[in-house]
Amino acid sequence: MNIGIIGSGNMGSGLGSLWARKGHHVIFSYSRHPEKLAELAASVPNAEAATPSEAAGRSEVILLSVRWPEVEEAIRTAGPMAGKILIDCTNPLKPDLSGLAIGHETSAAEEIARLAPGVKVVKAFNTAFAEIYHGGTRLFGSRRLSMFYCGDDETAKKTVTKLIIEIGLDPVDSGSLKSARYLEPLAMLMIQLGYGQGMGTNIGLNLIRR
Amino acid sequence: MNIGIIGSGNMGSGLGSLWARKGHHVIFSYSRHPEKLAELAASVPNAEAATPSEAAGRSEVILLSVRWPEVEEAIRTAGPMAGKILIDCTNPLKPDLSGLAIGHETSAAEEIARLAPGVKVVKAFNTAFAEIYHGGTRLFGSRRLSMFYCGDDETAKKTVTKLIIEIGLDPVDSGSLKSARYLEPLAMLMIQLGYGQGMGTNIGLNLIRR
Repeated sequence: MNIGIIGSGNMGSGLGSLWARKGHHVIFSYSRHPEKLAELAASVPNAEAATPSEAAGRSEVILLSVRWPEVEEAIRTAGPMAGKILIDCTNPLKPDLSGLAIGHETSAAEEIARLAPGVKVVKAFNTAFAEIYHGGTRLFGSRRLSMFYCGDDETAKKTVTKLIIEIGLDPVDSGSLKSARYLEPLAMLMIQLGYGQGMGTNIGLNLIRR
Repeated sequence: MNIGIIGSGNMGSGLGSLWARKGHHVIFSYSRHPEKLAELAASVPNAEAATPSEAAGRSEVILLSVRWPEVEEAIRTAGPMAGKILIDCTNPLKPDLSGLAIGHETSAAEEIARLAPGVKVVKAFNTAFAEIYHGGTRLFGSRRLSMFYCGDDETAKKTVTKLIIEIGLDPVDSGSLKSARYLEPLAMLMIQLGYGQGMGTNIGLNLIRR
Protein backbone atom coordinates (compact mmCIF):
# COMPACT_ATOMS: atom_id res chain seq x y z
CA MET A 1 0.00 0.00 0.00
CA ASN A 2 1.20 3.56 -0.65
CA ILE A 3 0.97 5.63 2.50
CA GLY A 4 1.44 9.40 2.30
CA ILE A 5 2.61 11.19 5.42
CA ILE A 6 1.58 14.84 5.66
CA GLY A 7 3.48 16.15 8.63
CA SER A 8 6.75 14.30 9.13
CA GLY A 9 7.47 15.40 12.68
CA ASN A 10 7.56 13.22 15.74
CA MET A 11 4.29 11.37 15.08
CA GLY A 12 4.53 11.12 11.30
CA SER A 13 8.14 9.96 11.21
CA GLY A 14 7.47 7.32 13.86
CA LEU A 15 4.35 5.84 12.30
CA GLY A 16 5.63 6.15 8.74
CA SER A 17 8.86 4.36 9.59
CA LEU A 18 6.97 1.54 11.29
CA TRP A 19 4.72 1.02 8.27
CA ALA A 20 7.65 1.24 5.84
CA ARG A 21 9.39 -1.53 7.76
CA LYS A 22 6.22 -3.58 7.38
CA GLY A 23 6.58 -3.34 3.59
CA HIS A 24 4.35 -0.39 2.73
CA HIS A 25 5.70 2.31 0.43
CA VAL A 26 5.81 5.47 2.53
CA ILE A 27 6.00 9.00 1.13
CA PHE A 28 7.10 11.54 3.74
CA SER A 29 6.13 15.18 3.24
CA TYR A 30 5.46 18.46 5.04
CA SER A 31 8.08 19.18 7.61
CA ARG A 32 9.08 22.32 9.43
CA HIS A 33 12.61 21.14 8.66
CA PRO A 34 12.45 20.25 4.95
CA GLU A 35 16.16 19.39 4.88
CA LYS A 36 15.41 16.50 7.22
CA LEU A 37 12.81 14.91 4.96
CA ALA A 38 15.32 13.29 2.61
CA GLU A 39 17.39 12.11 5.56
CA LEU A 40 14.31 10.55 7.13
CA ALA A 41 13.31 8.86 3.88
CA ALA A 42 16.83 7.48 3.47
CA SER A 43 16.81 6.04 7.00
CA VAL A 44 14.10 3.47 6.31
CA PRO A 45 13.39 1.02 3.47
CA ASN A 46 10.47 1.65 1.05
CA ALA A 47 10.39 5.36 1.75
CA GLU A 48 10.83 8.58 -0.18
CA ALA A 49 10.45 12.31 0.39
CA ALA A 50 8.06 14.37 -1.70
CA THR A 51 5.73 17.35 -1.65
CA PRO A 52 2.40 17.08 0.17
CA SER A 53 0.46 17.01 -3.09
CA GLU A 54 2.66 14.18 -4.40
CA ALA A 55 2.37 12.29 -1.13
CA ALA A 56 -1.39 12.66 -1.13
CA GLY A 57 -1.89 12.16 -4.84
CA ARG A 58 0.03 8.90 -5.06
CA SER A 59 -1.28 7.27 -1.88
CA GLU A 60 -4.43 5.34 -1.02
CA VAL A 61 -3.95 6.12 2.65
CA ILE A 62 -2.78 9.46 3.98
CA LEU A 63 -1.69 10.19 7.54
CA LEU A 64 -2.36 13.74 8.65
CA SER A 65 0.12 14.40 11.44
CA VAL A 66 0.69 18.13 11.59
CA ARG A 67 0.16 20.49 14.47
CA TRP A 68 -3.34 21.86 14.85
CA PRO A 69 -2.56 25.40 13.60
CA GLU A 70 -1.13 23.87 10.39
CA VAL A 71 -4.09 21.63 9.60
CA GLU A 72 -5.85 23.97 7.20
CA GLU A 73 -2.71 24.79 5.23
CA ALA A 74 -1.64 21.15 5.15
CA ILE A 75 -4.97 20.07 3.69
CA ARG A 76 -4.85 22.87 1.13
CA THR A 77 -1.32 22.03 -0.05
CA ALA A 78 -2.17 18.33 -0.20
CA GLY A 79 -4.71 19.05 -2.92
CA PRO A 80 -7.73 16.88 -3.76
CA MET A 81 -8.05 13.77 -1.60
CA ALA A 82 -11.69 12.83 -2.20
CA GLY A 83 -12.26 9.09 -1.99
CA LYS A 84 -8.99 8.45 -0.17
CA ILE A 85 -8.52 7.34 3.41
CA LEU A 86 -7.20 10.09 5.67
CA ILE A 87 -5.96 8.99 9.07
CA ASP A 88 -6.21 11.94 11.44
CA CYS A 89 -3.89 11.65 14.41
CA THR A 90 -3.94 15.32 15.26
CA ASN A 91 -5.03 16.76 18.56
CA PRO A 92 -6.29 20.34 18.61
CA LEU A 93 -3.97 21.39 21.41
CA LYS A 94 -3.55 24.90 22.62
CA PRO A 95 0.00 26.08 21.90
CA ASP A 96 0.95 25.80 25.59
CA LEU A 97 -0.57 22.27 25.85
CA SER A 98 -2.93 23.54 28.53
CA GLY A 99 -6.02 22.11 26.89
CA LEU A 100 -7.88 21.57 23.65
CA ALA A 101 -8.28 24.66 21.49
CA ILE A 102 -11.64 23.61 20.13
CA GLY A 103 -14.53 21.38 21.00
CA HIS A 104 -14.83 21.67 24.74
CA GLU A 105 -14.80 24.51 27.20
CA THR A 106 -16.37 23.34 30.45
CA SER A 107 -17.41 20.22 32.38
CA ALA A 108 -20.08 19.05 34.76
CA ALA A 109 -17.54 19.16 37.58
CA GLU A 110 -16.68 22.78 36.94
CA GLU A 111 -20.38 23.71 36.72
CA ILE A 112 -21.02 21.86 39.97
CA ALA A 113 -18.18 23.74 41.66
CA ARG A 114 -19.79 26.95 40.45
CA LEU A 115 -23.21 25.90 41.79
CA ALA A 116 -21.81 24.94 45.21
CA PRO A 117 -19.37 27.68 46.21
CA GLY A 118 -16.74 26.72 48.76
CA VAL A 119 -17.20 23.02 48.20
CA LYS A 120 -14.12 20.92 47.48
CA VAL A 121 -15.21 19.14 44.35
CA VAL A 122 -13.31 16.04 43.29
CA LYS A 123 -14.24 14.32 40.03
CA ALA A 124 -14.04 10.55 40.36
CA PHE A 125 -15.77 7.24 39.73
CA ASN A 126 -17.38 8.52 36.53
CA THR A 127 -15.31 6.48 34.09
CA ALA A 128 -16.40 3.01 35.23
CA PHE A 129 -19.83 1.49 34.74
CA ALA A 130 -22.10 1.33 37.78
CA GLU A 131 -22.21 -2.44 37.33
CA ILE A 132 -18.56 -2.52 38.40
CA TYR A 133 -19.54 -1.04 41.75
CA HIS A 134 -22.27 -3.63 42.24
CA GLY A 135 -20.24 -6.73 41.43
CA GLY A 136 -18.51 -8.93 43.99
CA THR A 137 -15.07 -7.77 42.93
CA ARG A 138 -13.57 -4.85 41.10
CA LEU A 139 -10.73 -7.02 39.80
CA PHE A 140 -10.41 -7.97 36.15
CA GLY A 141 -8.55 -11.23 36.57
CA SER A 142 -5.57 -10.04 38.60
CA ARG A 143 -5.79 -6.49 37.31
CA ARG A 144 -7.21 -3.41 38.95
CA LEU A 145 -9.11 -0.78 37.02
CA SER A 146 -7.47 2.61 36.94
CA MET A 147 -9.66 5.26 38.53
CA PHE A 148 -8.85 8.70 37.21
CA TYR A 149 -9.70 11.57 39.55
CA CYS A 150 -9.08 15.29 39.61
CA GLY A 151 -9.71 18.31 41.78
CA ASP A 152 -8.32 21.59 43.02
CA ASP A 153 -7.96 20.73 46.74
CA GLU A 154 -5.07 18.42 47.61
CA THR A 155 -6.45 17.34 50.98
CA ALA A 156 -9.80 16.43 49.44
CA LYS A 157 -8.00 14.48 46.74
CA LYS A 158 -6.09 12.51 49.38
CA THR A 159 -9.36 11.53 51.04
CA VAL A 160 -10.85 10.45 47.74
CA THR A 161 -7.70 8.49 46.93
CA LYS A 162 -8.32 6.40 50.05
CA LEU A 163 -11.94 5.82 49.04
CA ILE A 164 -10.77 4.66 45.63
CA ILE A 165 -8.21 2.27 47.06
CA GLU A 166 -10.67 0.89 49.62
CA ILE A 167 -12.94 -0.45 46.92
CA GLY A 168 -10.14 -2.10 44.99
CA LEU A 169 -9.37 0.43 42.29
CA ASP A 170 -6.06 2.00 41.30
CA PRO A 171 -6.14 5.80 41.75
CA VAL A 172 -4.64 7.99 39.02
CA ASP A 173 -4.24 11.67 39.92
CA SER A 174 -5.27 13.51 36.77
CA GLY A 175 -4.61 17.05 37.92
CA SER A 176 -6.86 20.00 38.63
CA LEU A 177 -10.66 20.01 38.36
CA LYS A 178 -10.32 21.26 34.82
CA SER A 179 -9.24 17.75 33.86
CA ALA A 180 -12.91 16.79 34.25
CA ARG A 181 -13.04 18.09 30.68
CA TYR A 182 -11.08 14.97 29.78
CA LEU A 183 -12.63 12.53 32.25
CA GLU A 184 -16.22 13.20 31.21
CA PRO A 185 -15.59 12.54 27.51
CA LEU A 186 -13.66 9.45 28.63
CA ALA A 187 -16.83 8.24 30.35
CA MET A 188 -18.69 8.94 27.13
CA LEU A 189 -16.15 6.80 25.26
CA MET A 190 -16.81 3.95 27.67
CA ILE A 191 -20.56 4.35 27.11
CA GLN A 192 -19.99 4.32 23.35
CA LEU A 193 -17.93 1.14 23.65
CA GLY A 194 -20.28 -0.54 26.10
CA TYR A 195 -23.56 0.24 24.39
CA GLY A 196 -22.78 1.67 20.92
CA GLN A 197 -20.18 -0.98 20.06
CA GLY A 198 -21.86 -3.72 22.04
CA MET A 199 -18.99 -4.52 24.39
CA GLY A 200 -21.24 -4.46 27.44
CA THR A 201 -20.46 -3.00 30.83
CA ASN A 202 -17.80 -5.44 31.99
CA ILE A 203 -15.05 -3.32 30.49
CA GLY A 204 -12.68 -0.84 32.04
CA LEU A 205 -9.49 1.10 31.61
CA ASN A 206 -6.05 0.33 32.83
CA LEU A 207 -3.23 2.85 32.68
CA ILE A 208 -0.06 0.92 31.99
CA ARG A 209 3.54 2.05 32.29
CA ARG A 210 6.90 0.65 31.34
CA MET B 1 -16.07 8.70 58.10
CA ASN B 2 -19.63 9.84 57.40
CA ILE B 3 -20.36 9.68 53.69
CA GLY B 4 -23.54 11.26 52.33
CA ILE B 5 -24.91 9.91 49.07
CA ILE B 6 -26.97 12.39 47.05
CA GLY B 7 -28.51 10.31 44.31
CA SER B 8 -28.99 6.71 45.38
CA GLY B 9 -29.49 5.18 41.96
CA ASN B 10 -27.24 2.71 40.24
CA MET B 11 -23.98 4.56 40.92
CA GLY B 12 -24.77 5.89 44.39
CA SER B 13 -26.12 2.62 45.75
CA GLY B 14 -23.14 0.69 44.43
CA LEU B 15 -20.43 2.99 45.75
CA GLY B 16 -22.26 3.72 49.03
CA SER B 17 -22.69 0.03 49.76
CA LEU B 18 -19.03 -0.67 49.08
CA TRP B 19 -17.91 2.09 51.45
CA ALA B 20 -20.44 1.03 54.12
CA ARG B 21 -19.01 -2.49 54.02
CA LYS B 22 -15.58 -0.93 54.55
CA GLY B 23 -16.81 0.56 57.84
CA HIS B 24 -17.84 4.06 56.84
CA HIS B 25 -21.22 5.37 57.95
CA VAL B 26 -23.20 5.93 54.79
CA ILE B 27 -26.31 8.11 54.52
CA PHE B 28 -28.32 7.42 51.37
CA SER B 29 -30.58 10.16 50.02
CA TYR B 30 -32.24 11.49 46.88
CA SER B 31 -33.85 8.74 44.89
CA ARG B 32 -36.43 8.75 42.17
CA HIS B 33 -37.90 5.84 44.12
CA PRO B 34 -37.92 7.12 47.73
CA GLU B 35 -39.57 3.91 48.95
CA LYS B 36 -36.43 2.04 47.99
CA LEU B 37 -34.11 4.22 50.08
CA ALA B 38 -34.96 2.54 53.41
CA GLU B 39 -34.69 -0.87 51.78
CA LEU B 40 -31.26 0.02 50.41
CA ALA B 41 -30.10 1.36 53.77
CA ALA B 42 -31.30 -1.82 55.49
CA SER B 43 -29.44 -4.02 53.03
CA VAL B 44 -25.96 -2.95 54.15
CA PRO B 45 -24.32 -2.39 57.55
CA ASN B 46 -23.53 1.16 58.74
CA ALA B 47 -26.14 2.75 56.50
CA GLU B 48 -29.26 4.83 56.89
CA ALA B 49 -31.71 6.70 54.69
CA ALA B 50 -32.26 10.43 55.09
CA THR B 51 -33.06 13.64 53.27
CA PRO B 52 -30.41 15.23 51.07
CA SER B 53 -29.88 18.06 53.55
CA GLU B 54 -29.40 15.57 56.38
CA ALA B 55 -27.08 13.46 54.27
CA ALA B 56 -25.02 16.48 53.29
CA GLY B 57 -25.18 18.20 56.68
CA ARG B 58 -23.93 15.24 58.68
CA SER B 59 -21.18 14.07 56.33
CA GLU B 60 -17.59 15.13 55.73
CA VAL B 61 -17.66 13.57 52.28
CA ILE B 62 -20.61 13.76 49.90
CA LEU B 63 -21.04 11.74 46.73
CA LEU B 64 -23.06 13.52 44.06
CA SER B 65 -24.48 10.78 41.87
CA VAL B 66 -27.62 12.11 40.26
CA ARG B 67 -28.43 12.43 36.59
CA TRP B 68 -27.22 15.57 34.93
CA PRO B 69 -30.66 17.28 34.66
CA GLU B 70 -31.09 16.82 38.42
CA VAL B 71 -27.75 18.29 39.46
CA GLU B 72 -28.96 21.82 40.15
CA GLU B 73 -31.98 20.69 42.20
CA ALA B 74 -29.89 18.13 44.09
CA ILE B 75 -27.34 20.75 45.11
CA ARG B 76 -30.09 23.13 46.16
CA THR B 77 -31.89 20.56 48.32
CA ALA B 78 -28.62 19.45 49.86
CA GLY B 79 -28.18 22.91 51.37
CA PRO B 80 -24.87 24.49 52.41
CA MET B 81 -21.85 22.27 51.80
CA ALA B 82 -19.01 24.80 51.93
CA GLY B 83 -15.78 23.32 53.23
CA LYS B 84 -16.92 19.74 52.64
CA ILE B 85 -15.60 17.29 50.09
CA LEU B 86 -17.98 16.67 47.20
CA ILE B 87 -17.18 13.72 44.98
CA ASP B 88 -18.72 14.34 41.58
CA CYS B 89 -19.27 11.15 39.61
CA THR B 90 -21.83 12.64 37.25
CA ASN B 91 -21.52 12.74 33.51
CA PRO B 92 -23.42 15.42 31.64
CA LEU B 93 -25.02 12.96 29.24
CA LYS B 94 -27.69 13.86 26.76
CA PRO B 95 -30.92 12.06 27.65
CA ASP B 96 -30.47 9.61 24.76
CA LEU B 97 -26.82 8.92 25.73
CA SER B 98 -25.74 10.19 22.31
CA GLY B 99 -23.12 12.52 23.69
CA LEU B 100 -22.25 15.05 26.35
CA ALA B 101 -24.81 17.80 26.82
CA ILE B 102 -22.25 20.43 27.74
CA GLY B 103 -18.60 21.11 27.33
CA HIS B 104 -17.82 19.91 23.85
CA GLU B 105 -19.45 20.22 20.47
CA THR B 106 -16.88 19.40 17.81
CA SER B 107 -13.48 17.82 17.24
CA ALA B 108 -10.41 18.23 15.06
CA ALA B 109 -11.45 15.14 13.11
CA GLU B 110 -14.85 16.56 12.28
CA GLU B 111 -13.33 19.90 11.28
CA ILE B 112 -10.83 18.08 9.08
CA ALA B 113 -13.63 16.11 7.41
CA ARG B 114 -15.33 19.43 6.73
CA LEU B 115 -12.12 20.92 5.27
CA ALA B 116 -11.53 17.92 3.00
CA PRO B 117 -14.88 16.98 1.48
CA GLY B 118 -15.23 13.42 0.23
CA VAL B 119 -12.26 12.20 2.23
CA LYS B 120 -12.74 9.15 4.44
CA VAL B 121 -11.39 10.44 7.73
CA VAL B 122 -10.45 7.93 10.40
CA LYS B 123 -9.29 9.21 13.78
CA ALA B 124 -6.51 7.06 15.16
CA PHE B 125 -3.05 7.02 16.76
CA ASN B 126 -3.72 10.25 18.66
CA THR B 127 -4.00 8.74 22.13
CA ALA B 128 -0.45 7.37 22.40
CA PHE B 129 2.71 9.43 22.72
CA ALA B 130 4.89 9.75 19.62
CA GLU B 131 7.71 8.17 21.65
CA ILE B 132 5.74 4.92 21.55
CA TYR B 133 5.97 4.92 17.75
CA HIS B 134 9.72 5.51 17.84
CA GLY B 135 10.65 2.80 20.33
CA GLY B 136 11.80 -0.68 19.41
CA THR B 137 8.57 -2.26 20.61
CA ARG B 138 5.03 -1.17 21.27
CA LEU B 139 4.63 -3.81 23.99
CA PHE B 140 4.36 -2.94 27.66
CA GLY B 141 5.75 -6.14 29.10
CA SER B 142 3.47 -8.67 27.47
CA ARG B 143 0.64 -6.21 27.01
CA ARG B 144 -0.46 -4.33 23.94
CA LEU B 145 -1.68 -0.77 24.07
CA SER B 146 -5.28 -0.31 23.03
CA MET B 147 -5.58 1.96 20.02
CA PHE B 148 -8.98 3.61 19.86
CA TYR B 149 -10.11 4.64 16.39
CA CYS B 150 -13.30 5.96 14.86
CA GLY B 151 -14.72 6.99 11.51
CA ASP B 152 -17.79 7.02 9.32
CA ASP B 153 -16.56 4.72 6.52
CA GLU B 154 -16.39 1.03 7.41
CA THR B 155 -13.99 0.07 4.62
CA ALA B 156 -11.59 2.83 5.61
CA LYS B 157 -11.81 1.68 9.22
CA LYS B 158 -10.91 -1.88 8.18
CA THR B 159 -7.79 -0.61 6.42
CA VAL B 160 -6.77 1.42 9.44
CA THR B 161 -7.41 -1.56 11.71
CA LYS B 162 -4.78 -3.48 9.74
CA LEU B 163 -2.31 -0.61 10.07
CA ILE B 164 -2.89 -0.57 13.81
CA ILE B 165 -2.36 -4.31 14.17
CA GLU B 166 0.75 -4.23 11.99
CA ILE B 167 2.58 -2.00 14.43
CA GLY B 168 1.67 -4.10 17.43
CA LEU B 169 -1.29 -2.26 18.88
CA ASP B 170 -4.74 -3.57 19.79
CA PRO B 171 -7.46 -1.83 17.73
CA VAL B 172 -10.64 -0.71 19.51
CA ASP B 173 -13.48 0.40 17.22
CA SER B 174 -14.92 3.45 18.95
CA GLY B 175 -17.77 4.17 16.55
CA SER B 176 -18.45 7.04 14.18
CA LEU B 177 -16.17 10.02 13.57
CA LYS B 178 -18.10 11.93 16.21
CA SER B 179 -16.31 9.78 18.78
CA ALA B 180 -13.25 11.92 18.06
CA ARG B 181 -14.93 14.20 20.59
CA TYR B 182 -13.97 11.58 23.16
CA LEU B 183 -10.62 10.49 21.70
CA GLU B 184 -9.15 13.99 21.53
CA PRO B 185 -9.86 14.79 25.20
CA LEU B 186 -8.46 11.34 25.98
CA ALA B 187 -5.23 12.38 24.31
CA MET B 188 -5.31 15.53 26.41
CA LEU B 189 -5.66 13.37 29.53
CA MET B 190 -2.56 11.43 28.50
CA ILE B 191 -0.68 14.70 27.99
CA GLN B 192 -1.84 15.88 31.42
CA LEU B 193 -0.64 12.62 33.00
CA GLY B 194 2.61 12.51 31.07
CA TYR B 195 3.67 16.13 31.50
CA GLY B 196 1.35 17.72 34.07
CA GLN B 197 1.56 14.84 36.54
CA GLY B 198 5.11 13.91 35.61
CA MET B 199 4.46 10.33 34.57
CA GLY B 200 6.46 10.76 31.37
CA THR B 201 5.63 9.40 27.95
CA ASN B 202 6.08 5.69 28.59
CA ILE B 203 2.45 5.31 29.57
CA GLY B 204 -0.55 4.05 27.67
CA LEU B 205 -4.07 2.78 27.91
CA ASN B 206 -5.34 -0.74 27.94
CA LEU B 207 -9.01 -1.55 27.58
CA ILE B 208 -9.66 -4.60 29.72
CA ARG B 209 -12.67 -6.93 29.76
CA ARG B 210 -13.88 -9.72 31.93
